[in-house]
Amino acid sequence: MGKGGMSHGDVKDGEEENMAAWLLGVNNLKIQPFKLPPLGPHDARIRMKAVGICGSDVHYLKEMRIADFVVKEPMVIGHECAGIIEEVGSEVKHLVPGDRVAVEPGIGCMRCDLCKEGRYNLCPEMKFFATPPVHGSLANQIVHPADLCFKLPDDVSLEEGAMCEPLSVGVHACRRANVGPETKVLVMGAGPIGLVTMLSAHAFGSPRIVIVDVDDHRLSVAKQLGADKTVKVSTSLSDVPAEVEQIKKAMGGAIDISFDCVGFTKTMSTALSATSSGGKVCLVGLGHTEMTLPIAPAAVREVDVVGIFRYKNTWPLCIEFLRSGKIDVKPLITHRFGFSQKEVEEAFETSARGGTAIKVMFNL
Amino acid sequence: MGKGGMSHGDVKDGEEENMAAWLLGVNNLKIQPFKLPPLGPHDARIRMKAVGICGSDVHYLKEMRIADFVVKEPMVIGHECAGIIEEVGSEVKHLVPGDRVAVEPGIGCMRCDLCKEGRYNLCPEMKFFATPPVHGSLANQIVHPADLCFKLPDDVSLEEGAMCEPLSVGVHACRRANVGPETKVLVMGAGPIGLVTMLSAHAFGSPRIVIVDVDDHRLSVAKQLGADKTVKVSTSLSDVPAEVEQIKKAMGGAIDISFDCVGFTKTMSTALSATSSGGKVCLVGLGHTEMTLPIAPAAVREVDVVGIFRYKNTWPLCIEFLRSGKIDVKPLITHRFGFSQKEVEEAFETSARGGTAIKVMFNL
Amino acid sequence: MGKGGMSHGDVKDGEEENMAAWLLGVNNLKIQPFKLPPLGPHDARIRMKAVGICGSDVHYLKEMRIADFVVKEPMVIGHECAGIIEEVGSEVKHLVPGDRVAVEPGIGCMRCDLCKEGRYNLCPEMKFFATPPVHGSLANQIVHPADLCFKLPDDVSLEEGAMCEPLSVGVHACRRANVGPETKVLVMGAGPIGLVTMLSAHAFGSPRIVIVDVDDHRLSVAKQLGADKTVKVSTSLSDVPAEVEQIKKAMGGAIDISFDCVGFTKTMSTALSATSSGGKVCLVGLGHTEMTLPIAPAAVREVDVVGIFRYKNTWPLCIEFLRSGKIDVKPLITHRFGFSQKEVEEAFETSARGGTAIKVMFNL
Amino acid sequence: MGKGGMSHGDVKDGEEENMAAWLLGVNNLKIQPFKLPPLGPHDARIRMKAVGICGSDVHYLKEMRIADFVVKEPMVIGHECAGIIEEVGSEVKHLVPGDRVAVEPGIGCMRCDLCKEGRYNLCPEMKFFATPPVHGSLANQIVHPADLCFKLPDDVSLEEGAMCEPLSVGVHACRRANVGPETKVLVMGAGPIGLVTMLSAHAFGSPRIVIVDVDDHRLSVAKQLGADKTVKVSTSLSDVPAEVEQIKKAMGGAIDISFDCVGFTKTMSTALSATSSGGKVCLVGLGHTEMTLPIAPAAVREVDVVGIFRYKNTWPLCIEFLRSGKIDVKPLITHRFGFSQKEVEEAFETSARGGTAIKVMFNL
Repeated sequence: MGKGGMSHGDVKDGEEENMAAWLLGVNNLKIQPFKLPPLGPHDARIRMKAVGICGSDVHYLKEMRIADFVVKEPMVIGHECAGIIEEVGSEVKHLVPGDRVAVEPGIGCMRCDLCKEGRYNLCPEMKFFATPPVHGSLANQIVHPADLCFKLPDDVSLEEGAMCEPLSVGVHACRRANVGPETKVLVMGAGPIGLVTMLSAHAFGSPRIVIVDVDDHRLSVAKQLGADKTVKVSTSLSDVPAEVEQIKKAMGGAIDISFDCVGFTKTMSTALSATSSGGKVCLVGLGHTEMTLPIAPAAVREVDVVGIFRYKNTWPLCIEFLRSGKIDVKPLITHRFGFSQKEVEEAFETSARGGTAIKVMFNL
Repeated sequence: MGKGGMSHGDVKDGEEENMAAWLLGVNNLKIQPFKLPPLGPHDARIRMKAVGICGSDVHYLKEMRIADFVVKEPMVIGHECAGIIEEVGSEVKHLVPGDRVAVEPGIGCMRCDLCKEGRYNLCPEMKFFATPPVHGSLANQIVHPADLCFKLPDDVSLEEGAMCEPLSVGVHACRRANVGPETKVLVMGAGPIGLVTMLSAHAFGSPRIVIVDVDDHRLSVAKQLGADKTVKVSTSLSDVPAEVEQIKKAMGGAIDISFDCVGFTKTMSTALSATSSGGKVCLVGLGHTEMTLPIAPAAVREVDVVGIFRYKNTWPLCIEFLRSGKIDVKPLITHRFGFSQKEVEEAFETSARGGTAIKVMFNL
Repeated sequence: MGKGGMSHGDVKDGEEENMAAWLLGVNNLKIQPFKLPPLGPHDARIRMKAVGICGSDVHYLKEMRIADFVVKEPMVIGHECAGIIEEVGSEVKHLVPGDRVAVEPGIGCMRCDLCKEGRYNLCPEMKFFATPPVHGSLANQIVHPADLCFKLPDDVSLEEGAMCEPLSVGVHACRRANVGPETKVLVMGAGPIGLVTMLSAHAFGSPRIVIVDVDDHRLSVAKQLGADKTVKVSTSLSDVPAEVEQIKKAMGGAIDISFDCVGFTKTMSTALSATSSGGKVCLVGLGHTEMTLPIAPAAVREVDVVGIFRYKNTWPLCIEFLRSGKIDVKPLITHRFGFSQKEVEEAFETSARGGTAIKVMFNL
Repeated sequence: MGKGGMSHGDVKDGEEENMAAWLLGVNNLKIQPFKLPPLGPHDARIRMKAVGICGSDVHYLKEMRIADFVVKEPMVIGHECAGIIEEVGSEVKHLVPGDRVAVEPGIGCMRCDLCKEGRYNLCPEMKFFATPPVHGSLANQIVHPADLCFKLPDDVSLEEGAMCEPLSVGVHACRRANVGPETKVLVMGAGPIGLVTMLSAHAFGSPRIVIVDVDDHRLSVAKQLGADKTVKVSTSLSDVPAEVEQIKKAMGGAIDISFDCVGFTKTMSTALSATSSGGKVCLVGLGHTEMTLPIAPAAVREVDVVGIFRYKNTWPLCIEFLRSGKIDVKPLITHRFGFSQKEVEEAFETSARGGTAIKVMFNL
C-alpha cells in the first residue's frame, strides 16, 4: 500500500498465493489468502520473517475493538514485524531485493499540520497496521512505503528487527520525558512495556533505574535485564504513602522521571508523589481511562505529566541500540511459533495467558 | 532581611517607629511595631507605598494555615508590594534612594541545585513574604535583597508595580506553557488569576482567547479586558461533554493551550478534553487537591499537563508589559484602602467577600 | 504538479491556453504557453492573481544561476504568489473552487529523515518554484499540492497573500532565534528582508527594535514601519567598534538577538560584537560567502550563530499576522504591473534598479 | 572566601602556616604563605590533595595575562582541584570534616539576571580561581563556598575529583550541543580538551565519534581512549575539501555535531563544511580570535554555531560518569609532582613542553 493507497486487497499477478492471519470475529483468527495491492513507485514488497504479538492484537481478538476503533470487516492482524525485501518501486533508492528490514507500521498523511511539524504519530489520518480498517502484517508478504522499511545491519536478526516496534514505545517515552545521563528513573510496572521502557532509559544513559511491580517473577526478570533496584508493591491504594517512601529509599536520591507503564490510579498516584520537584511523569500504560489523582500537589512542585502515543522516527535509533548492544531484546522473546493455523491459535493463547510469556514471536 | 537573614525583627536605630499589619490569630490582624533587621551590603530598605491583598493572605487570616504552612508565631501579612527606596547597602549599584521599585517577595537560597539551574521558585529553602515563619510586607518599611527590587519607569505607578506579583503568576504560566503568537488559548475561570493569565496570554501574542466561568459578571469583566469569546458554564460535571463542544465552537479552531485557573475536577476535565492533540493544559488554580480525571484519553493525544509554582524572573517582563501598555492592570484594582487599623480590617473583609472586588489595594 | 510529479509541462485538455513568464536566457524573459500537468488527487489548480518579484528571481534573470542551481532549460520564473482555486483533486477536503489562497512554493519529499522530523525546508529532494529544474508560478494558472495552498480570510487581500512568502523568511528567522516579548532585537540592514524581519520581530512581541543601514531613505522607511530606533552606519570595517557602541546606546539595554539581513563581513562582525552574553545572531542575508569574523570573542560569551534556509510551516502564522493587523505588508508593495510582455520586462527592471522599490508585484 | 567575600588574604588564627604557589611575574612562581579568610557560615575549609595544571595556568605564567585579564598583583595559581574537608561553616549541612570533595572553581554573584536564569557561567561578576584578581587553589588549604564542594564517592579518587574541572568543559560542550544516543560526533583536535570532549560525547551516548589531529601520537591516544575512527590532517587550509571528504567517509553517515577543540580557521572551516544540514558546530578551543570562515554555506544548511564558556552545574554529572566508569580519566594523568618549589617549577615546565604530557597533577 502506498502512502496515498487504500488498503491491502488487490491481487498482484504472477505471485504465489499470499496468506495472512485474518481476524474474523471474537476469538476467531484464520489463515486465508490476502491479495496485495500494486506496488507504487515509493513502495516495497516485503516477505515477512518475524512478527511479534502485541497486547493490542490480543485485545482485538478478544473484543473486536479498542476504544473507538471497531473491527467491522475481516482484518489482517499483526504489526510488530521484520522481513526481507522482495521488490521495490521505481523511485526507491535505498533498498534492493534481499535487504533485511524492520518495518514501521504507521503511515502518516504527511499533509496535515501535525505531520509537517514532525509529530506524525498524532496524524488524524494515520493508517496503522491492524488498526481497523487498515490491514496488518502477519502475512507471507506485504506492500508498504519503502521509507518505513529500515535496513538491518548484519549483526541484528530479523526477530530483533521485529522488536523495534515495542522498543519504539520505550524510546519515544524516553525522548518525550527527556531521559539522559543525569536522570534517575522510576518505572512503574515490569510487564513488556515496563521492560522496554527500562531498557530504553538505560540506553539513554539513565544512571539509576528503580522498577516496581506486584509480581516477584516480573521483578526478577527486570533485575536480570538491568534494573538497579526493584520494589515489590501491593494493589492497595492505601499503601501508596509507605511505598513512595520505600521507592525513594531504593532510589537513594531524587527521582527525576517516572514512567507509569501500568496506568492505574494507584501507579499514577505513586509516580506523582514519588517524583521530585521539577521532574516529569510519563504516562505510558493505559490501564484506567479515568483516574483519581493527587494532581495539585504534583503541579505545585512543577512535576509535569506527559503522555505518549506510539512513536515517531524511532526505528534508526532502535536499530542502533540493538547493533551496539546497548539494548539486548533477545531475552524478551520467550516463545516462538510457526505460521500455521494451529500455531497461530496457540501463539495468541500463549500471549493472552501471560505468565512467563513476555514476547511471543512468529517465524514465517 | 538579607539573603542569609532570619526574619524581620531587629530594630534599626534612629528610625521612626515602623508599623506593620500582624496576623495574630484567626480573623485577628493588628497594626503593631515591626523592627527592621540591619541593612546588609546587598540589601535595600524600602518605604512601602502600595500593597495588594491576595487570596492567600485572606486564607491565612481565616485559617492560620495553607497546606503544611502553619502560622505558629505572630507574622506580618502581605506580599504584593511596591515602594520607594530609602537606603541601600554598600554593594548595591543599581538603585539609589528615591527610586520607585516593585518588589519580588521570594528569596531563594541560590545554593541548591534548583536555584543554580534557574528554577529558584522550586527552592526547598525559599523564604517568601508572609509564608510562615517569614514576615510579609504590609508595613511602612521593609528590608529586602536589592536584586529583588525592580525599578519602575516613570509611567508605571506604584500600584501597578504592586500588581507585578499577581501578574507574575500569569506570566510564569504562559512561559511554562509556551504561549506565543500561534497558540490559541482557553482560560478556565475568570477570577483574579484567570484574568491575569488571560492578560498575560494576550501579551505573549495569543491570537485568540476563550474564557469560561460560571458567573456572568466575571465573564463581562473578562470580555471588557480583552477576551475574544466567553462561555458560561454550569457547575455540573455531567455538562462537560456539551460544554467542551461549546468551547471548541467558540474557539473556532484547535485549542493549543488551556489554563485551568480554578483547579476543580470539572474545570480540569473540561481542559483535558478540549485541548487539541499535542497541546498543553497548565494547572494554575488549586481548588481541589485530588481530582478524578480523564487523563488517559488526554495522554494518548500527547496533551501534557504542566503545573506552576509561583514564578521566577518575571518582574522585568511584567514591568515591560505595563510600560508598553500591552497589559493594563488598572481596571483590576477595584478597591483602595489606607493603612489604619480600621481600614486594614475593612480591606480584608472586602477582599474576602469577593463579589465585584478583584484586587483590593492599600495605599500607605 | 503533485508531490510525486515531475514538472509543469503536460497540457490539460479543454482549458484556455495557459501563459507563463519563461526565463530563456540572460535578461531574456518571454511570456509563452505553459502546459499544466494533470491534477492529482491531492492537488489544486490555482488561477494566479498576485505574484511578487524576489531578489532571487532577478538574480536568475541576470546570471542564470544561484550558487549550484543553474538554469539549463527554459524555466517559468516566480514564487511569491496567491490566487483563486479553480479545481481541486478528489481527495482535497479543505478547499473549493473560488477560495482565495496564498501558495507555499516548496514541496518536500516527506520521506527523508529531515522531512519526518519537521524540518522539511532542509529536504535534499525539495522541489521549489523557479529553482531549476522546477518551474515557478508567474503564470495564469498552476497546479500545486493543495496542502500548500492556504485559504485567505476575507479581509486579507491576494497581494497580501503573495507577501506571505517574503514575510515567511522573517517569521522563520524569528522562530529559529526564539524572539518573544523579552527579546530586544537588532536588525542589520533595512532592505526588503531586513524590513520583513523587523515586522516579524515586532509581531513576535519584541519590546524594542533597533535597525541599522547605510542608506537614509531605507532607514526612514524602517522608522515609518515601526523601528524604535535607527542607526546609520558606514561601509568601513574600521568603524565597527564605534558603531557597536552607538547601536548599544540606541538600544539602551542588552541586545538579545541580532539578525544580520545583509550578510557582509562588516554587518556580521557588528552583530557578533553587539549581541549580549547568552544571546543569538541569526544570519539571514547572504551577501558574502566567506567572512572574516571575531567569532571566538562571541563564542566565549555563548553568543550562538543560527542560520536559516527559507521557512517551514509559516503560512498560517503569516496569515494570522496579516488578519490581526499585527503586521501590515501593504506599505512594502511599492510598484505594481500587469502581466504583459512589456510590463513583465519593466517590472523586473524596476525591481533590479532598487532605489525606492521594495516589493514589485504583478496583478494577473 | 564567602560568596560576598573579596579574596584570600586574611589570616585564620591558630592554623598551621598555609602555603600556596604564587605567580609573581613572568616565569616566576614561588611557594609562599597564603593567609586564609575567615570561614563564613556557608563556607568550607578544604585541605587540597590533588591540583592539576591547565593550559591557562601555563599561559598566565608565560604572559601574565589572558585576553583582558591581567595579573597586576601576586596571585595564587591553580584551579583544577580536589581535597578533604577540614572545617565547615555553621549553615553547612551536606558536608562534614573528612569528606573528600571535588571543588568547582567559579563563584557567580547569584544576583544578576544570568545567574538567576541558571547561566551563572556567564555572570559578569564571576569570581574564578586564578583569574586575576582572584586567588587560585594550588595551596595547602583554601576556603570556598561549601555548595561548590562536591562529595566524592569512595571509589572515585581525589585525582579523579580534580579532573572534574577539565572534564566539565567537555560535559558543558556536550550539553550545549545536545549530544545524545543519536548524534554522530566529530572532534577536531586530540589535545587535552579534545580528549575530554570525546570522552564526554561517548558518555552522553554518541554512537560514533571521529577525531582529527595533525599528530600521530595524539591520534593513537584518542584511539586507545575510545575514538571510533581517527583522521590525520595537515595544517594547510587548501586541504580542507579533501579532508572533509575523508572525515565524512570515516564517519560513514551524517555528522550531526562537530566540536572544534582547536579553534583555528582551518579546523572551524572543516567543521562547518563537514557537519550535516540541521547540525551544530560547537566552538570549544580558542586558537584564533578572528577566523575567515565559509559561514554562509553553513547557515543555509541551518548548521548552527554554539560557543561555550567554562561550564555550569557539571560536577554532579562528572562525578557520576567517574563513579559508573562511563568515563575513565586516569589515563589522561600522565605526570605527577609533589608540592615543593622545585617540583612546582618542573611540573609547569613539563606541562608547557607538551609532548606526551596530557595532564600534569600535583599531589599535596
